[in-house]
Amino acid sequence: MNNLLSIEQLTGDEIRDLLALGHRLKAERGHHERLPLKGQTWALIFSKSSTRTRVSFEVGISELGGRPMFLSVHDIQLGRGEPIKDTARVLGRMIHGAAIRTYGQQEVEEFASFSGIPTINALTDEEHPCQILADLLTIEEIYGPGSWKDMKIAFVGDGDNNMSRSWMWAAKRLGFTLAIGAPTNYLPLEDFRRHLDCENVIFTTDPVEAVKGASVINTDVWLSMGQESEGLSKEKHFYPYQVNRELLEHAASGHSVFHCLPAYRGKEITEDVLEHFAPVIFREAENRVHAQKAVLATLADARRG
Amino acid sequence: MNNLLSIEQLTGDEIRDLLALGHRLKAERGHHERLPLKGQTWALIFSKSSTRTRVSFEVGISELGGRPMFLSVHDIQLGRGEPIKDTARVLGRMIHGAAIRTYGQQEVEEFASFSGIPTINALTDEEHPCQILADLLTIEEIYGPGSWKDMKIAFVGDGDNNMSRSWMWAAKRLGFTLAIGAPTNYLPLEDFRRHLDCENVIFTTDPVEAVKGASVINTDVWLSMGQESEGLSKEKHFYPYQVNRELLEHAASGHSVFHCLPAYRGKEITEDVLEHFAPVIFREAENRVHAQKAVLATLADARRG
Amino acid sequence: MNNLLSIEQLTGDEIRDLLALGHRLKAERGHHERLPLKGQTWALIFSKSSTRTRVSFEVGISELGGRPMFLSVHDIQLGRGEPIKDTARVLGRMIHGAAIRTYGQQEVEEFASFSGIPTINALTDEEHPCQILADLLTIEEIYGPGSWKDMKIAFVGDGDNNMSRSWMWAAKRLGFTLAIGAPTNYLPLEDFRRHLDCENVIFTTDPVEAVKGASVINTDVWLSMGQESEGLSKEKHFYPYQVNRELLEHAASGHSVFHCLPAYRGKEITEDVLEHFAPVIFREAENRVHAQKAVLATLADARRG
Repeated sequence: MNNLLSIEQLTGDEIRDLLALGHRLKAERGHHERLPLKGQTWALIFSKSSTRTRVSFEVGISELGGRPMFLSVHDIQLGRGEPIKDTARVLGRMIHGAAIRTYGQQEVEEFASFSGIPTINALTDEEHPCQILADLLTIEEIYGPGSWKDMKIAFVGDGDNNMSRSWMWAAKRLGFTLAIGAPTNYLPLEDFRRHLDCENVIFTTDPVEAVKGASVINTDVWLSMGQESEGLSKEKHFYPYQVNRELLEHAASGHSVFHCLPAYRGKEITEDVLEHFAPVIFREAENRVHAQKAVLATLADARRG
Repeated sequence: MNNLLSIEQLTGDEIRDLLALGHRLKAERGHHERLPLKGQTWALIFSKSSTRTRVSFEVGISELGGRPMFLSVHDIQLGRGEPIKDTARVLGRMIHGAAIRTYGQQEVEEFASFSGIPTINALTDEEHPCQILADLLTIEEIYGPGSWKDMKIAFVGDGDNNMSRSWMWAAKRLGFTLAIGAPTNYLPLEDFRRHLDCENVIFTTDPVEAVKGASVINTDVWLSMGQESEGLSKEKHFYPYQVNRELLEHAASGHSVFHCLPAYRGKEITEDVLEHFAPVIFREAENRVHAQKAVLATLADARRG
Repeated sequence: MNNLLSIEQLTGDEIRDLLALGHRLKAERGHHERLPLKGQTWALIFSKSSTRTRVSFEVGISELGGRPMFLSVHDIQLGRGEPIKDTARVLGRMIHGAAIRTYGQQEVEEFASFSGIPTINALTDEEHPCQILADLLTIEEIYGPGSWKDMKIAFVGDGDNNMSRSWMWAAKRLGFTLAIGAPTNYLPLEDFRRHLDCENVIFTTDPVEAVKGASVINTDVWLSMGQESEGLSKEKHFYPYQVNRELLEHAASGHSVFHCLPAYRGKEITEDVLEHFAPVIFREAENRVHAQKAVLATLADARRG
């Protein structure tokens, strides 16, 4: 494993190894024996601002002995002004790794290819692999290692965004049951479904069907960054998919609600549900640190060879 | 002491302990035996830009073994977009402490309460506790430990801002004589004076009376950041309070002039007075580093328990 | 050597020592025995954004044991708002060194003088000394130590900018032959040539004459940052100076093309020439790290005394 560009490109074993390492690194927090990033500088190259993604990477890199270097859109213009292949070849000779948060998946792939250093997809329009690894880690903490195997997981909201796509690839690679509940025009297109080719992923426009018997119910903001202008016209399709008490009556007993934050109360989730599941949801946020440390350590070790 | 949110919330003993530790850490600079922030990430969350506050915190955190992480208003929108209580609960599980420079005192209090990690007021509209600790450290260096006890300290300029308020609470907690000299409409309101309830704080609209017999004369910019539009109409009330040679003739012999910078020559202070007292004023700036290191070390130790 | 403000202010011996140290530090990368910046904070104060300069300094400072602190134009307004002499006196008591990238050479000189800490010119309108040190290091790697002595070096493009000026001072201090090939109005003025007073620097408006027999051909963007508005009217004078296959037929055999990046394909250099010499050009970029480490270590040691 030389890069983490998507869940799609991982094998089931690679995911399982990352989860196992994530648990170990979490238990060891504050007294790591090995510092696999010692002496290294890792860049965070962000086109989109993000507190959670940025802080979790800075903390993770730093606690593994490395130095994080945050480069915002103000400091570097990846793909504008200078071709990515030039920036990547320069940085590849100066630094030791990079986590990139941008729009086009292609930019991250190109950076990885030309820089020759370990590259992490810290969010693209295509996938959000780090969040899914943190979520799987959280599921294993609550329900036990590998517990997702015999579980139904639901994702309600926009079924055709980076979060839902990463969930679908995780279901494919790990074999659990995933239900995507979304309005008609917000389900993945036939092309993608054929490419995914996975029987254990269920698509439905009925939120109750999606949630029925699910142990973990995920939701996400309806309007991603940059989509705010679509606003009201998009939102009206999503209210039936709001995660509220009524909808959760259909979930399995002992269910948990996950949210990758920021949360918009009264939109995709109600205040009472959010606060009831706050211990889970903020643990999920913290687990970004541990999941990403597993990725960082794995990539640094692979490079060392 | 779990947070430093204001001088008001400190006891006299806590202030004295911080000063003693500040002197010790200054003497030890460059060869600290203990690194109380080792392995820790502390965030600097700044709504207002500031070279001095930012650099002094970054250096202090770093020299105590920690890693500072600067988050400007470009990177995080504390209280906008996402409720503070959500941001605070996320960061509280990822990082080890925070210094916040913002407008509302309430934001800092709320962050401290929801994050559960040591939180420092690095400037609010209400108070500027770190600057006052640096100033007291500087007074002790020049006039001896505890010298403020038998001293008259003057503050001339805007008597109703964060600096003057922190000075007033310091006078209350430590028992020294403080004279606030300010134009009629820039003295603290009756409500605040009653809340302060402190006989050794004198209010006057006469700058000569304020400075008479004072050993330390403080001034500050007339227009704080964000007030520039009030401009000329505000300024005209303040010229009689300018710290110049004439006014200083009324001060005690061996007096010092303090300024927390940036200084506007020809406004609150004249060029010749500023340059004459430059050795004091730039030492005062440096002491931000040492005073804040005392705060950081105290908070980190308290949390460790 | 207390500062690196320009190539002009260096002696030939100082340049040779920096190159020797640069080679040693490059060989040692990843396992430095000494960390001359240990416990130190060095500021990067940048008025102009720059990936290469910023990253190379951050990595260099960090790998020598120090902590880089990046202050962009958003965070600090050197020379605006507060006089440089005040900012310099404050920072001089808080931090251990600074690299400044700005417009006026005078600002860097003034900062060095008032701060009293090691100060590096990381680019001004006047000179770009760090880039020239990296270029000389690259020449020595390719052609051997001191190989520039018996070599003709060409610089084609804008003959009157910071890059060409630093090259001219290097030719003067080290005694190599330098040909500046530029359009009539883009050659240095008579005043500067008299000040330089160096017979081994040749000025010509004929690009072929400049390149003839040259072993190293340097070019640079035609429009520096801030000059984009001059655009087309400036560019038309420069097309005859484009570094392309045809022009390079006149160069010495075994020649190399250098570019300090970013490159504008089809303007100052053609795509095929850039990609053919990519191994040299990206090595040149990497050598910024090593050359600057030599500067940093030399300055830190000089200060330690």
